[in-house]
Amino acid sequence: MNIFTIKEDIVSRNNERAKEVRALLGDKGIFYVNLMSSPGAGKTTVLSKLIPLLSGDFRIGVIEADLDSDKDALTIERETGAKVIQIHTAGACHITCQMSLEALEALGTDGLDLIFLENVGNLVCPAEFDTGSDMNLVLLSVPEGDDKPLKYPLMFEVANAVAVTKLDVREIFDFSFDNAVNNIKKRNADADIFFVSASDGEGIDALAQYIKDKALKKIRKD
Amino acid sequence: MNIFTIKEDIVSRNNERAKEVRALLGDKGIFYVNLMSSPGAGKTTVLSKLIPLLSGDFRIGVIEADLDSDKDALTIERETGAKVIQIHTAGACHITCQMSLEALEALGTDGLDLIFLENVGNLVCPAEFDTGSDMNLVLLSVPEGDDKPLKYPLMFEVANAVAVTKLDVREIFDFSFDNAVNNIKKRNADADIFFVSASDGEGIDALAQYIKDKALKKIRKD
Repeated sequence: MNIFTIKEDIVSRNNERAKEVRALLGDKGIFYVNLMSSPGAGKTTVLSKLIPLLSGDFRIGVIEADLDSDKDALTIERETGAKVIQIHTAGACHITCQMSLEALEALGTDGLDLIFLENVGNLVCPAEFDTGSDMNLVLLSVPEGDDKPLKYPLMFEVANAVAVTKLDVREIFDFSFDNAVNNIKKRNADADIFFVSASDGEGIDALAQYIKDKALKKIRKD
Repeated sequence: MNIFTIKEDIVSRNNERAKEVRALLGDKGIFYVNLMSSPGAGKTTVLSKLIPLLSGDFRIGVIEADLDSDKDALTIERETGAKVIQIHTAGACHITCQMSLEALEALGTDGLDLIFLENVGNLVCPAEFDTGSDMNLVLLSVPEGDDKPLKYPLMFEVANAVAVTKLDVREIFDFSFDNAVNNIKKRNADADIFFVSASDGEGIDALAQYIKDKALKKIRKD
């Protein structure tokens, strides 16, 4: 039973640290988005389409987290010109709030209004660790299937918004939009749901507008 | 640093337990396959196509692991008639060898020759825990992208075989077979690589034959 006690302690300490990060970013007027999904659901591609739509209103930073490789950071830098850093998790399957804080310091938050954290591709563990973000944005790609909220409950419970991605291949895969919405709502009745295709741009405007509204609301209030 | 020491202890104890499971299954003449991948890469669908090709030679059992839902076990039972149980991991992101052993006992191994464990959909954590299997079969689906072995190194390092799945949508996605093979080989030069489409059956015969050969080699030797 020891391991579970230790895990509770870790999660509890993490939650305390998340409050500090949230207060720190609040003072600075920065909106912080934690982007989570399975591997290959389209996090980097969606980000590369969202950033140009938001960069007129916000000075944007991006933290790319992976177990290894710097491919995603290079893609974001090349395609958007946003300020970006790559962090490696040394085998870890998620980002703790301490890792999130260190990444924010490494990125340098001065002069930024909006920061995206692209978490490790994993529908399980990242959901357990509050990163101090203002918004958990979860992607569910069409090829993965509409049943994923049933199998990975916590990820959808902690989501503020869910974007169904790779909408352009919806004719090819056995994916029901009704089932997807019902399964997401079963886990989280309050989640805002979007449907996007990063490759042809469908729905990206609406998602960008949603993030813009939420970010402006926070920044203006602060 | 405590957490890392604890983790090493857990992994070390897990590896010891895996030897016991392997010896137990060896005595019984059972071949045990641990099937791992991202969520939605096609584990259940591939299994449902493999089992009919193998059921003439082997008496087959299936352990379906998920955080929640019994959808996959119902699918396998309906589509293949194999002996199947669903286990829930209570939020855990992987199957430890202890969980694997308890699942084997719950399934009942008497009279079986070949058992598949469909692990939790996760490219990170399941790779850390030896389940006592004879073969780690990892799926990489075309929609996920050919770069995944770079980002999730351990999963491909522990793979005995990798099957690239959803081959039927290769024209639609930006997926290079050369890159995929190179990236897998970079992590694991010894991995055997297959290309399959469960929806139209392409390549399933070759994968079934591979499993059959490995299983017969073990069962006959034992």
